[in-house]
Amino acid sequence: MHLFAGIDVGQSATKVALADEEGVLLARASGPAGDELGLGAASTRLRDAVESTLAAAVKRAGLPASARFTSLVVGISGFDRELQGRRPRIHARHLRYTHDAEIALAGAHAGAPGIVAIAGTGSVVRALARGGSEVRIGGHGYLFGDEGSAFGLARDSLRAAVLARDERRASGLLAALERHFGCTAAECVRGFYSGTIARAKLAGFAPALLAEAQRGERTARAIVHAHALALAAQIRAAARLARMRSPEVALLGGLAANATFERALRSALRGALPGARYRRPIYDAALGALLLAFTQAGITLREIAER
Amino acid sequence: MHLFAGIDVGQSATKVALADEEGVLLARASGPAGDELGLGAASTRLRDAVESTLAAAVKRAGLPASARFTSLVVGISGFDRELQGRRPRIHARHLRYTHDAEIALAGAHAGAPGIVAIAGTGSVVRALARGGSEVRIGGHGYLFGDEGSAFGLARDSLRAAVLARDERRASGLLAALERHFGCTAAECVRGFYSGTIARAKLAGFAPALLAEAQRGERTARAIVHAHALALAAQIRAAARLARMRSPEVALLGGLAANATFERALRSALRGALPGARYRRPIYDAALGALLLAFTQAGITLREIAER
Repeated sequence: MHLFAGIDVGQSATKVALADEEGVLLARASGPAGDELGLGAASTRLRDAVESTLAAAVKRAGLPASARFTSLVVGISGFDRELQGRRPRIHARHLRYTHDAEIALAGAHAGAPGIVAIAGTGSVVRALARGGSEVRIGGHGYLFGDEGSAFGLARDSLRAAVLARDERRASGLLAALERHFGCTAAECVRGFYSGTIARAKLAGFAPALLAEAQRGERTARAIVHAHALALAAQIRAAARLARMRSPEVALLGGLAANATFERALRSALRGALPGARYRRPIYDAALGALLLAFTQAGITLREIAER
Repeated sequence: MHLFAGIDVGQSATKVALADEEGVLLARASGPAGDELGLGAASTRLRDAVESTLAAAVKRAGLPASARFTSLVVGISGFDRELQGRRPRIHARHLRYTHDAEIALAGAHAGAPGIVAIAGTGSVVRALARGGSEVRIGGHGYLFGDEGSAFGLARDSLRAAVLARDERRASGLLAALERHFGCTAAECVRGFYSGTIARAKLAGFAPALLAEAQRGERTARAIVHAHALALAAQIRAAARLARMRSPEVALLGGLAANATFERALRSALRGALPGARYRRPIYDAALGALLLAFTQAGITLREIAER
């Protein structure tokens, strides 16, 4: 039996999907996070996560531990052209590592042309054009990008809050921030620079900001509006480059799952790209990686079937 | 003889000014940088810089090395309420460490009420109100502040440049950035995150950006305009809090010395605060610290006299 696998290595979990050559799903498994940004060349975080989760899936499928793969694709959060740490030991004829956004895109539209806007802690927009070419807009991280991301929203909130405090203006946003973190805005700023408040923790303020915006707090509304516009502009740019007038658009990531932000983004996108059609993702990113594993072996899979 | 001293500890040099009790300048000296941000409690960078530069000034004034001070004020770049490293060994009846913006403010207006906008790698606005109270607006660093600073300009340039490249738009700014750093915008982004391009080096792009703006490049003009407006708004807020309708405003720092940026800022400030009057700083920051040393000892000095 020819074996295929897709692996989604995220910042909170690693997910594996195994299938036979007919595209019948044999097993799925979930394991620890494996992203390696900043961990250095000796890190085994990715290797351990991939090997253990893959082994669990192989076992669950009733296969021997020595099973070899025909084709395997691994999508990694934060992947930038090469692995950061130790290479997982995988026996596969075809093996490729890629960015997690590529597998998310492949999954969301089941390999068909379309656009994904991934709005989580960070953000990025990707489009798959007819003909197979890919477009990426944004995704330049916490200082040069993150439009329409939880970190971007939280960063601009803190920025506005410290200015409000400097100017001695009453600010519902400032109060919400100090309540959320249990420190003054100035202490939050210091905490961030000194490393006691990590980026993910700062990004964790986004839901509270969105609640403030929902309640009508003016600065919060302005920040949410600006980020929705920026992300909508990136989606429009992706559609233009991929030559799609009425693309299917899937919104992915934790921030996109927030009803207030999704509403703001849809509203911004109605203005920016009236022809866009929303859809829920057809498959998740691990299944997207699995689809890409078939493509990589020269097989076009129409759908993934449950056993 | 009673001795007074002011010390300006900067990111590129340490400057000392010594005076007798009449406010007659006895000596000035310059030594190595002494800011300690992120260097930890064992750092002797500040101590070494202060002690050696002070000793040089004492010697130049023809005083014995054992000379003791009546009052001494040290302004330190990046100072945030407490010393980061080892405490300099100084014999002084009155001794105070403070932020470098406070001594710059005291120097610029010779201790009189007024406003300084310090626009260097970072930025901050400070006002001294009638009655002696101080106002600070901004100065929240590279992620939550830096409006109208070299880093802020460079950050927004890189942000715009990577988006232009993603969207495959021709961009004079993108070309200028890649020319300046000798790498693609994407490589610059990676270089910044990985630490091979330090913040000061990124900020070093600001003059090239201002030259692009001067030449009429649209995105460059928009970035300069937005930063000038933001800094002008902070100056207006400082004037409002200090209850000054037509304050004296001094523009300090490397970016403020750029003719293109100064023109943009003055234009923005004409709209924001029509009554503002510009002045060149009367004294530099070391002499500002010296004035504060007199104030600290209960002496109001009208002016500092050359010997």
